Amino acid sequence: MFEARFQSFEDSGERAATAARVAALRAELERRGLSGFIVPRADRYQNEYLPPSEERLSWLTGFTGSAGAAIVLADRAAIFVDGRYLLQVRDQVDTEVFAIEHLVDAPPESWLEANLTAGAKLGYDPWLHTVDGASKLAKACTAVDASLVPTEPNPIDALWSDRPAPLLGPVTLHDLRYAGEDAAAKLDRVRTEIAKLKADALVVCNPQDVAWAFNIRGADVAHTPLPLACAIVPQDGRPALYIDGRKLTNTVRHALEQHADVRDPGEFARDLAALGGAKRTVRLDQGSAADALAKIVKEAGGKVVSGVDPIALMRAVKNETEIAGARAAHVRDGAAVVRFLAWFDREAPRGALTEIDAVAALESFRRDTGKLKDISFPTIAGAGPNGAVVHYRVTRRTNRVIAPGELFLIDSGGQYEDGTTDITRTVALGEPSAEARARFTRVLKGHIAIATMVFPDGTTGAQIDSFARQFLWAAGVDFDHGTGHGVGSYLSVHEGPASISKRGATALKRGMILSNEPGYYQAGAYGIRIENLVLVAEAPPVAGGEKPLNRFETLTLAPIDRRLIDLELLTRDEIRWLDDYHARVDATLDPLLNADTRTWLAAATQPL
Amino acid sequence: MFEARFQSFEDSGERAATAARVAALRAELERRGLSGFIVPRADRYQNEYLPPSEERLSWLTGFTGSAGAAIVLADRAAIFVDGRYLLQVRDQVDTEVFAIEHLVDAPPESWLEANLTAGAKLGYDPWLHTVDGASKLAKACTAVDASLVPTEPNPIDALWSDRPAPLLGPVTLHDLRYAGEDAAAKLDRVRTEIAKLKADALVVCNPQDVAWAFNIRGADVAHTPLPLACAIVPQDGRPALYIDGRKLTNTVRHALEQHADVRDPGEFARDLAALGGAKRTVRLDQGSAADALAKIVKEAGGKVVSGVDPIALMRAVKNETEIAGARAAHVRDGAAVVRFLAWFDREAPRGALTEIDAVAALESFRRDTGKLKDISFPTIAGAGPNGAVVHYRVTRRTNRVIAPGELFLIDSGGQYEDGTTDITRTVALGEPSAEARARFTRVLKGHIAIATMVFPDGTTGAQIDSFARQFLWAAGVDFDHGTGHGVGSYLSVHEGPASISKRGATALKRGMILSNEPGYYQAGAYGIRIENLVLVAEAPPVAGGEKPLNRFETLTLAPIDRRLIDLELLTRDEIRWLDDYHARVDATLDPLLNADTRTWLAAATQPL
Repeated sequence: MFEARFQSFEDSGERAATAARVAALRAELERRGLSGFIVPRADRYQNEYLPPSEERLSWLTGFTGSAGAAIVLADRAAIFVDGRYLLQVRDQVDTEVFAIEHLVDAPPESWLEANLTAGAKLGYDPWLHTVDGASKLAKACTAVDASLVPTEPNPIDALWSDRPAPLLGPVTLHDLRYAGEDAAAKLDRVRTEIAKLKADALVVCNPQDVAWAFNIRGADVAHTPLPLACAIVPQDGRPALYIDGRKLTNTVRHALEQHADVRDPGEFARDLAALGGAKRTVRLDQGSAADALAKIVKEAGGKVVSGVDPIALMRAVKNETEIAGARAAHVRDGAAVVRFLAWFDREAPRGALTEIDAVAALESFRRDTGKLKDISFPTIAGAGPNGAVVHYRVTRRTNRVIAPGELFLIDSGGQYEDGTTDITRTVALGEPSAEARARFTRVLKGHIAIATMVFPDGTTGAQIDSFARQFLWAAGVDFDHGTGHGVGSYLSVHEGPASISKRGATALKRGMILSNEPGYYQAGAYGIRIENLVLVAEAPPVAGGEKPLNRFETLTLAPIDRRLIDLELLTRDEIRWLDDYHARVDATLDPLLNADTRTWLAAATQPL
Repeated sequence: MFEARFQSFEDSGERAATAARVAALRAELERRGLSGFIVPRADRYQNEYLPPSEERLSWLTGFTGSAGAAIVLADRAAIFVDGRYLLQVRDQVDTEVFAIEHLVDAPPESWLEANLTAGAKLGYDPWLHTVDGASKLAKACTAVDASLVPTEPNPIDALWSDRPAPLLGPVTLHDLRYAGEDAAAKLDRVRTEIAKLKADALVVCNPQDVAWAFNIRGADVAHTPLPLACAIVPQDGRPALYIDGRKLTNTVRHALEQHADVRDPGEFARDLAALGGAKRTVRLDQGSAADALAKIVKEAGGKVVSGVDPIALMRAVKNETEIAGARAAHVRDGAAVVRFLAWFDREAPRGALTEIDAVAALESFRRDTGKLKDISFPTIAGAGPNGAVVHYRVTRRTNRVIAPGELFLIDSGGQYEDGTTDITRTVALGEPSAEARARFTRVLKGHIAIATMVFPDGTTGAQIDSFARQFLWAAGVDFDHGTGHGVGSYLSVHEGPASISKRGATALKRGMILSNEPGYYQAGAYGIRIENLVLVAEAPPVAGGEKPLNRFETLTLAPIDRRLIDLELLTRDEIRWLDDYHARVDATLDPLLNADTRTWLAAATQPL
């Protein structure tokens, strides 16, 4: 009945072949005199979003998660994934070949210290590791008298016979009515930052930064309108933008040439070396720039100054136009989600709906808005035990009928030109267990704690992350992911530098958009997550207050399943928050819906 | 009437002489061909607690705070202090000579980058900077084409004519009935850690570690029973303990020689070089070991492996004997504090009590226990505006009469052989303002939030710090210090590695003792702090819980001033916590008090 056009349900894992591939890699390494090789999930842009031609980790191991790494030594191999993927990895990866390690608790560095022998030579591709990442690996190697050896070309590329061609997604201009600030003004602000940083030039190697600074969007990776491109912005003079000319129409090229020299990506390394040769001081972010870039500048005699990416912070703070766009996108997206939830409540009790049906229906409702450019990531739709797989992606093989008595978790988003959305709802089919309701309510309490927080200017995400967990902690449980990530403006649905997590060291600034998504996952049983996007906004001043205060404004508009709430566990203030939120959802979306859906929404948003 | 024996009230600043000293230093630097010199507040042991002979920063600048640094160049000089000392530094330091900089916001590295010229040679004493500290300085120098030059002997020592002789505080054995584990067993555990770290030897340069591992205490610095000493513990074989033999009685020497070779401190560098010469792998903590130590090992051909100090973590986790000792010390100390608070309530309303009177009285009540070895730090006793100076130390010059209508903040502690205490109470004299009561109540709410927290094993102090601040944030205020620090067992009142603060990256483990001390300070008006020590303990398991949970057990026993509480702001649970706490204080201390004080305590601990 519904069709998903932006998402496929095929299994991409090819478990059978990995042992042979690992064997081929070992032979290749031996030929090159290497004891081992490390394969991160990364491309030269150090971006979460990879084109298929860069999925070396998946090719080698079968693992398709969004973060991870593998190390292959002559007699052993390991794959490293984080808590989100511990179930998935066992499903996809041949555990006879790869030991499974926790990326955070037992990272590659520790494994190398324990498994490398003295004199070993570990190869790495300096284009696929950040400066910081390579330096950690080098330290681990040195600690056991082994060495880390830059290895080009990448040995996987020599073996990967059916490697897809790089995508050449057309570049489009991101209109000023969505961007709110033209490229000239943005580049002026960037130059001011470069001057403050006392650098001669800034290396911009994050395509999100390129997209933001030049007001362009691309189509090189799935679901995120990234143009794979990089740039060098000098303190004085014209920036150089390195992008494959085949992606540009004459109009786009002309627009870009107003602000920059448009150059071939093949000239990037040469131009960097020239800067180095001219003894220039080049600023790059050691946490996101490829190790190769720093090496090129230094080896040519230039000076590299490391430090956080100044554009990332500028990009994270949305301007008034982007904020207005986000609000509009969330109203539109909320209406589509409400249509979906109403449809689900009508259809699911018949007992035949599958996860794939739900994904297709939700995408259809979003497409009906007439403004959907893409979904913002493959929808996560997990019924019962599949809901406990944090980054579950349904395939025809794993597809489940959503059965009565089960929870159904659906995490999805849309790419609209005025804004990117990301929302998770967990709904009950039939009568949920008392335990599931208690857990859902504790997740909700954490969500409300974040939604209602007031905090001084300068507070970081790390300082507030635990407020989302406190009620779960009191029940002896927790969730193994951050509480929230930054979200781009018609850009990446996962955007740095700010996050609400243990590692969120960036101050939350007014204009940032982040997710608020605590959860709870019981392996083999069910998953719960409640996710809204929130905007960091000024809080009303308090009499006698001494510090500028911020708060979150919730942008996402869709009901939270009242059937899953254990009222006994909520305080009066929490009930008031939910009732107010539901009243706003109903008042805002009602005019956009037909009579049936309107009736459904009125019931779903009644006061508790 | 009362006398303080452990604390003096003299001003130690000698503002007049510093210009001449700086001039003499400049001449000395010129003789040595240096462009400048950096003077940290540190000795070779990189310890907060310095003997007078190591107070070079104070000699040069007049500044007597517990943290800071100065840099003297030919034409300019600056002193760096943190937020706690911004008022004090202006009082003590000649601002014609030294520019005042914020140690955290504008650290020496940034100042060097802005003020050093290319080719400049900045001297530093490698014994007085940690490996990490020296590396930051070197990086700043390199960034402006200047260099960082190890400078021995320290040029200040050549000029400091009336430098006090090093203290030779007698070393005592820390009895097994307080330590709970003998030195042999501790050293075995240390050796196991060294083996795990794959090192041949561990350099122990923190005197707290030496005191803990060898079960000794000393008298080389004020208030903290530290023996200034260091050690080398090999993975196999006998440790070497470097300590001035004049501090040892025959009995102590004999006891130490059971476990270690007792050697002269002069041999430490030579023995380290010998380890290096034998190509050994030496582990040291780059965050606390002097830069000179790493240099000696490396220059001799050895390998240095950096990493966190393994003894610090072992020391922070108190054993059953130390925990029982802490409980006993807190009962004893609580009774002394209650006698003080009762006396204060009786005497202060007459309008003649001064801060110094209060300090002397409190010390006397502690001495009356018959067990007080020392106070654990100079008592902070601030009436009215003096209470807002976070690390205030009263002198005859600043001493104030505690006036009706004022708040009085008193932060103090005792060193007992069975435990170290640290407690702050804020009390009202006369009728407090509504604002002061509201602020006090918000501080109390934060204190209770920490005291009642339940958190999974592995949670760090950084993850819970903000729970102490949330109610202040909601009122637009905050406090500019951590919520809590680790506390030693008859050792340093400030002890690493755990803390409850933004920077508290160490997991809170069962057996750790920390302070819980949120506050609020209104410059020029009043200060509030409520501090109890808490023990990390196992929390009762929860049905359906999946993770081992911890909680805090409050050790400190003394009433919290009920007159400062705005009941409207407390929840029922918070009121119950305070009533339960007060009931426990009353029941525990009542038997130790005379009739008058008992009556006072019963009133002070009545339910709200």
